[in-house]
Amino acid sequence: MSKKIALLPGDGIGPEIVAEAVKVLDAVAQRFSREFVYETLPIGGNAIDDFQDPLPPHTVKGLKESDAILLGAVGGPKWDQNPSHLRPESGLLRMRKELGVFANLRPITAFEPLLHASTLKKEVLSGVDFLILRELTGGIYFGEKRRTATETGELATDTLVYSTQEIERIVRMAFDIARKRKKILHSVDKANVLESSRLWRETVNRIGKDYPDVKCEHILVDNCAMQLIRNPRQFDVVVTENMFGDILSDEAAMLTGSIGMLPSASLGASVGLYEPCHGSAPDIAGRGIANPLGTILSSAMLLRHSFGWEAEAAAIEEAVYEVLSKGVRSADLATPDEKTVSTSEMGDLVVQSI
Amino acid sequence: MSKKIALLPGDGIGPEIVAEAVKVLDAVAQRFSREFVYETLPIGGNAIDDFQDPLPPHTVKGLKESDAILLGAVGGPKWDQNPSHLRPESGLLRMRKELGVFANLRPITAFEPLLHASTLKKEVLSGVDFLILRELTGGIYFGEKRRTATETGELATDTLVYSTQEIERIVRMAFDIARKRKKILHSVDKANVLESSRLWRETVNRIGKDYPDVKCEHILVDNCAMQLIRNPRQFDVVVTENMFGDILSDEAAMLTGSIGMLPSASLGASVGLYEPCHGSAPDIAGRGIANPLGTILSSAMLLRHSFGWEAEAAAIEEAVYEVLSKGVRSADLATPDEKTVSTSEMGDLVVQSI
Ligand SMILES: CC(C)[C@H](C(=O)O)[C@@H](O)C(=O)O
Ligand SMILES: CC(C)[C@H](C(=O)O)[C@@H](O)C(=O)O
Repeated sequence: MSKKIALLPGDGIGPEIVAEAVKVLDAVAQRFSREFVYETLPIGGNAIDDFQDPLPPHTVKGLKESDAILLGAVGGPKWDQNPSHLRPESGLLRMRKELGVFANLRPITAFEPLLHASTLKKEVLSGVDFLILRELTGGIYFGEKRRTATETGELATDTLVYSTQEIERIVRMAFDIARKRKKILHSVDKANVLESSRLWRETVNRIGKDYPDVKCEHILVDNCAMQLIRNPRQFDVVVTENMFGDILSDEAAMLTGSIGMLPSASLGASVGLYEPCHGSAPDIAGRGIANPLGTILSSAMLLRHSFGWEAEAAAIEEAVYEVLSKGVRSADLATPDEKTVSTSEMGDLVVQSI
Repeated sequence: MSKKIALLPGDGIGPEIVAEAVKVLDAVAQRFSREFVYETLPIGGNAIDDFQDPLPPHTVKGLKESDAILLGAVGGPKWDQNPSHLRPESGLLRMRKELGVFANLRPITAFEPLLHASTLKKEVLSGVDFLILRELTGGIYFGEKRRTATETGELATDTLVYSTQEIERIVRMAFDIARKRKKILHSVDKANVLESSRLWRETVNRIGKDYPDVKCEHILVDNCAMQLIRNPRQFDVVVTENMFGDILSDEAAMLTGSIGMLPSASLGASVGLYEPCHGSAPDIAGRGIANPLGTILSSAMLLRHSFGWEAEAAAIEEAVYEVLSKGVRSADLATPDEKTVSTSEMGDLVVQSI
């Protein structure tokens, strides 16, 4: 039975990197006798250009009818001055909400062959292997926004709201995942200041009672931003609200050698959404030098989480590891003395290793 | 003419480290023929214990009558379960608001003798020297908080509000400071999601017209969290709102070798408030092993910013540098093979160097 994968190449380097992931998926299909049907749909800047909407209705429809979604990246300077509903990011946020993917999983895994390129010391990074779980459809991203005039200027307001239910479902997922790993969960909040964080913390404590085997610690967001650099190996699973997760997961990306390598999965609904953690990199778009590995590794997560195909996922991850171990580097990964390959050469090498 | 300095030792290691800073201030007074009068006032947990109020009225009165304020740190597990108005942090936040110190300055300076102890590579840190300017009396820390019951649980709400005026005054201060430094200003926001960030960005652009000589760049908070680790030397002055500043400045503290070293100044009102960036460290309180250098360097900032005494401030900073260069280490700064000195020995050594 064939699986339907919706492709959202997006903007900037998006189309280039998604094309390489498709090559790799096709190689997996061949090796494991699977069949994929792809449907390419518009989102972001290109959708604004063609449909005056960063998330056209037919994209939403196509996504909901698919078995899983692979996204490149959206955005670019061309649309940065648009009113907010006509900006690529607003398509992304609406998509998350429409699909109901409330949990963003970001594995932070140190890639041994790349560690020398990090600004952190190798001995600090070696063995780093944790997962950040970011709440993705609530909080200040989706609260009411307001702008009002005052006598002396303006007043801008954002609202950070969380319900018990929204917190519960992501926290429960975090405990479930921690239980299958090292059974260490860090819940990040700012409970000494925010009311939403206090509800968050209470909810974590309540749900934690169902998971006595998992060691759960609360950590303040400012302290967490420090600890990620000071001693990243202390972490196994980290769960947090939307905005904190945005900041901390990008910071944590620096622990792995390169953000170009990092995949992500957005789950919690009937269809899962997979995308690299890096952005659309408009400055290098179309030059064939982007690193496709984040997207390729996202497609591995897709096979694992949406289809339950562990062997297929592992085959991709091992192929990527093998290619890196041989010293193959895209431009973003290379130190000045290392030779680099193009986007499509990198994809071809991963395919050969599968 | 004598200067009146209000001392707020606070909780945990606070009293120990403030005592050392006072020793150093007295040494400066002697060398430069200055006179200080100190008034010690309660704040935080000890004030809750003695006055059922983390910021008693007579503390506020004493602070407002002083020429400058030196704070140790507040907080500890003893008061962590209190209702929020009876928690040490709420005294701190109320004090900031009552005094009107809207600008928190945190210099992030790599201390060459300590760099080997950082988890970042020495070549990345060497020469790091920037200033984070955090807005301190607005934003989500001070917006309306609410908790309401729903059918399925509760709803917790925090409100992030900024007015044009609040943004303007901190941004103007940032441009003024940048002008006296390398003329590079990074303004951090999340303008692709938050309305308050969009007002922030517009205000920065408008005020920037008065400072054509300063190169001003906008950077998204998630990207900034990455860039601080990837390439910290690109920064000179960084200005941001309250919550982002809290997170990013603690992250940036890791760039200097130890948060134990870092001073801060909170300015913008008639009286300035100075404190180390680290917390009250209740786990090591009373053992005489805390690092007093963050507080000692805060007292240097006090002399510079509140009294305009550059030579006196520099004398403290040079003394600290000299002591560190000789290999003197408090427990938090030492690698396993280094000998350590106690809190008061460290203070004495700085005094000797003055
Ligand atoms: C583009 C932006 C709205 C988005 C976010 O903040 O969620 C991005 O930074 C991400 O992390 O996916
Ligand atoms: C104690 C806490 C409320 C405070 C803050 O977040 O402002 C602290 O983290 C700081 O940075 O001074």
